[in-house]
Amino acid sequence: MRSHYCGQVNETLADQPVTLCGWVHRRRDLGGLIFVDMRDREGIIQVVFDPDQQAIFADANKLRQEFCIQVSGKVSLRPESQVNAQMATGKVELIASELTIISRAEPSPIDFNQHVSEEARLRYRYLDLRRPDMNHNIRFRARVTSAVRRFLDEQGFLDIETPMLTRATPEGARDYLVPSRTHNGKFFALPQSPQLFKQLLMMSGFDRYYQIVKCFRDEDLRADRQPEFTQIDIETSFMSAEQVRAVTEQMVQQLFRDLLQVELGEFPTMTWHEAMRRFGSDKPDLRNPLELVDVADLLKDVDFKVFSAPANDAKGRVAALKVPAVADQISRKNIDEYTQFVGIYGAKGLAWLKVNDIDAGRDGLQSPILKFLPDDVVSELLSRLQANSGDIIFFGADKANIVAEAMGALRLKLGETFGLVADGWQPLWVVDFPMFEEVEDGLTAIHHPFTAPVGVTPAQLQADPANTLSNAYDMVLNGVEVGGGSVRIHDSDMQQTVFNILGIGEQEAREKFGFLLDALKYGTPPHAGLAFGLDRLVMLMVGASSIRDVIAFPKTTTAACLLTDAPGYANDDALQDLGISVNLDAEQTNDGQA
Amino acid sequence: MRSHYCGQVNETLADQPVTLCGWVHRRRDLGGLIFVDMRDREGIIQVVFDPDQQAIFADANKLRQEFCIQVSGKVSLRPESQVNAQMATGKVELIASELTIISRAEPSPIDFNQHVSEEARLRYRYLDLRRPDMNHNIRFRARVTSAVRRFLDEQGFLDIETPMLTRATPEGARDYLVPSRTHNGKFFALPQSPQLFKQLLMMSGFDRYYQIVKCFRDEDLRADRQPEFTQIDIETSFMSAEQVRAVTEQMVQQLFRDLLQVELGEFPTMTWHEAMRRFGSDKPDLRNPLELVDVADLLKDVDFKVFSAPANDAKGRVAALKVPAVADQISRKNIDEYTQFVGIYGAKGLAWLKVNDIDAGRDGLQSPILKFLPDDVVSELLSRLQANSGDIIFFGADKANIVAEAMGALRLKLGETFGLVADGWQPLWVVDFPMFEEVEDGLTAIHHPFTAPVGVTPAQLQADPANTLSNAYDMVLNGVEVGGGSVRIHDSDMQQTVFNILGIGEQEAREKFGFLLDALKYGTPPHAGLAFGLDRLVMLMVGASSIRDVIAFPKTTTAACLLTDAPGYANDDALQDLGISVNLDAEQTNDGQA
Repeated sequence: MRSHYCGQVNETLADQPVTLCGWVHRRRDLGGLIFVDMRDREGIIQVVFDPDQQAIFADANKLRQEFCIQVSGKVSLRPESQVNAQMATGKVELIASELTIISRAEPSPIDFNQHVSEEARLRYRYLDLRRPDMNHNIRFRARVTSAVRRFLDEQGFLDIETPMLTRATPEGARDYLVPSRTHNGKFFALPQSPQLFKQLLMMSGFDRYYQIVKCFRDEDLRADRQPEFTQIDIETSFMSAEQVRAVTEQMVQQLFRDLLQVELGEFPTMTWHEAMRRFGSDKPDLRNPLELVDVADLLKDVDFKVFSAPANDAKGRVAALKVPAVADQISRKNIDEYTQFVGIYGAKGLAWLKVNDIDAGRDGLQSPILKFLPDDVVSELLSRLQANSGDIIFFGADKANIVAEAMGALRLKLGETFGLVADGWQPLWVVDFPMFEEVEDGLTAIHHPFTAPVGVTPAQLQADPANTLSNAYDMVLNGVEVGGGSVRIHDSDMQQTVFNILGIGEQEAREKFGFLLDALKYGTPPHAGLAFGLDRLVMLMVGASSIRDVIAFPKTTTAACLLTDAPGYANDDALQDLGISVNLDAEQTNDGQA
Repeated sequence: MRSHYCGQVNETLADQPVTLCGWVHRRRDLGGLIFVDMRDREGIIQVVFDPDQQAIFADANKLRQEFCIQVSGKVSLRPESQVNAQMATGKVELIASELTIISRAEPSPIDFNQHVSEEARLRYRYLDLRRPDMNHNIRFRARVTSAVRRFLDEQGFLDIETPMLTRATPEGARDYLVPSRTHNGKFFALPQSPQLFKQLLMMSGFDRYYQIVKCFRDEDLRADRQPEFTQIDIETSFMSAEQVRAVTEQMVQQLFRDLLQVELGEFPTMTWHEAMRRFGSDKPDLRNPLELVDVADLLKDVDFKVFSAPANDAKGRVAALKVPAVADQISRKNIDEYTQFVGIYGAKGLAWLKVNDIDAGRDGLQSPILKFLPDDVVSELLSRLQANSGDIIFFGADKANIVAEAMGALRLKLGETFGLVADGWQPLWVVDFPMFEEVEDGLTAIHHPFTAPVGVTPAQLQADPANTLSNAYDMVLNGVEVGGGSVRIHDSDMQQTVFNILGIGEQEAREKFGFLLDALKYGTPPHAGLAFGLDRLVMLMVGASSIRDVIAFPKTTTAACLLTDAPGYANDDALQDLGISVNLDAEQTNDGQA
């Protein structure tokens, strides 16, 4: 029905006949002519209907926005004065000689030029996806997956599908459950990741696996979360952590080179401890030049408990964050606001010090806590922070993890507020994570319980789990964790030890992971892998502000689909077949209609 | 950890050092030497351990089947007499100088050389997948998906993901339901296909879509069905049925050319009516030369109600099936067995006639029904069937659909039994299906309710639905339907008319498909598509006898995973969050343990 896409028509086709199919993007009537911007997935071209073409002019006059049409005509160079350099097709226009109205359109609830509510966008998603920017995002995503697959195919990775109807996995989030009709009373879980299956594939000898695969988490959603999301899932055998990082780094480099013409260069590597120390984050945005500076040693003896207590606590931390040359732009109101902000992360307050005049001694400084700081402390502090007139310094003093979180978040906020974040791309590998972190009732795995520790025997791990590092790695890009992975445990003793430390008894381990413990007995190869969050990676690459803008049919933050009105009610026969019933009170409480 | 894969080591590497990783496939001790067939995903190589290599010989002596090892050594040409022409590595062997035992293996429950129960194969799937043939199947599948994607990418198709958590779809099979935690009392359905979403993507203007995607049907399983299966899903805009067939035919041709070195040639096209008439099947296996021949016109007036009744019924059919030159191989017992066989398909009997001597008149014929057939009928019958001495003729006489099913199935059985099925590949397009078929309580859609009729207005369709053809097409290969699709309705009046005919009232249509009917109002492009069953296509291509042999982690016929023991019990808190409870009696009935 067409000879070209609209967006492909340019001056090389001048004076040639073409036939196009697409949508009326805009119509203007000018000087007796009708101008239609006609759109298809490849772009927009201007079509001109001349009243001399009597046979079609009457039809052209019926055209409204979003009509689906087929137009034939001759490509004509525009006069120099009318060339639109912004458009790929801007040097030409199509002089229409034939027109077919394929489908009419009612007035669209989605106006591309106006702000439309998120609700309307999701409800009329098929129209929202016609927006040129949404079209670009979804097409870009297809190019990303295609490029990723080509790269991994070439590197000998095998695309192998793992089950969607499976057993609850141990990622720790809530599973989506699927009641079984043939085994009433039992449930499948939708996978939070194919973690154990990809490890089993290594045990089967496939050596290099990948899959671009849907994963599911039934969690309360934030702006950048969706109940179903997509992973680029990778696993390898007989490769070291360094080799896995090298091949996936190369993949991302090539992706940026081919799709964005960006050279990312070699990714620096930073230990988790350094990242937490300097940036208060395990995914530091290196485009932001601000850094935390530890000052506990200077403040151990000051007569100010807020500082001295954490400074003398092995689990405490006192860190300073200097923002250069903005002291005069920060009011008391701003500081109150920042104090409230760090409060979200558990900080009980936010001490600060303005350096109004570095050469004026104490008189040049302004701070509610200045009175607690002896001269020598002040001077060492200013020197360590390389402070200058006009700088402001914030202090975090608390448990180390609270200081890191609160000051790490403040660092990002201040960098944003004062325009300190550089343009461009800053990739980073974060490595040497601790194996475990303390939670109320013991230890929990920072990655997942199949992550291998670095350089210890099972006995050594059991003896000092809190200080053992894991062979895990995260790929961070502009402060976003785009991927994470690890070397896995390939020894059943070590696996059982990790379960022990996590408080998973032998019986529970056997019940939940018996098949994995069994599988480890039959010549398991060393293996390691990584998973990328595809949605987040694409979101970063296209510069979208919401993950919903890179997913064709996303859910709302209450995990509903406004387009199809899912979830919906099930009929009683179906529920009876499944051997389940709906609790009436729950039904009424959460939904309001029974 | 390796320099090469085992399967890649050949004479070009003679005298060079290599390092390999893999598994002990077989060990033999011979003349004081230890020979190990070492396996990885690329193949098997013979490794020789010589007692002169004292440092490693003791370790080599510990090797058992399925140990995971790393071996270094020098590649050596085998003496001419020991060359194994069956193996890619058969001209060489590796003289080991270093050996690391990476992981030991307990004796494997999966013996590659013995018959192992299906249950053991599924329970120890990670070991079963080490079998060279299973390794081949799964790797071949990855090559298929990779080739399909490359082809479709090149043709401008966009890989776009559609939701897994969605609304019940109208394919007619039972849905898997997923209870919603945030909307208690409501359920998502897992998709039976992305049908409506891909149509919406066409309305969004993406023009060419594809996805290799998991689909779900909660049906009682047969050998070639799985609760989750994979579709190569395709949709296009502004393309005719012929164009869709052309591009997908080219895809399958290229797949066979690149992966099997088979030239399929141009696919013939056959109408549904012709297929039913000649082969009693909408997916005829053209490798089988047997054909049904209609003979109702000859038998209208015979004094044998079994024939004359259907011969005079507009909905009846009488068809003959001649099997050449096997009359003397078919006993009464065989015929009884065939009679029972066609009974499965609803046939009440199976008339037959043996042509013992074509030149001997009635005396040369043998048949219990001969007495009912006058001479002229017999002679016209034999002539129409081009019968010869030694042939046997079977008759089906009943409702047309029963005759087609029963005689179509008998045709396949007899073709198989007497080795009449030719080697090679016989592709075919079946087109011009009826829109609807009669069921007890009205009409049902033969494809799905979004399939466009051929050449009628909504009013014409409403007036004579039973005789309207649909613009649907199936791709058939060696008697297997590997793909099916259609031109879709892109007009809301037509869509509403089809719903009416199917007895879906306006309210029900609005409730279930309101979003589709709405979407059809906004400039819908003409669109058409097709979906291939990936599992079945791969199964055909590798010659597997079960769909389970081309799926890494399949379910049993009761939809369970023996490996992970899924489905499993859910904990009470989870069920409470979901607002559902398990019916105790159902739990006990189906599962035996509460």
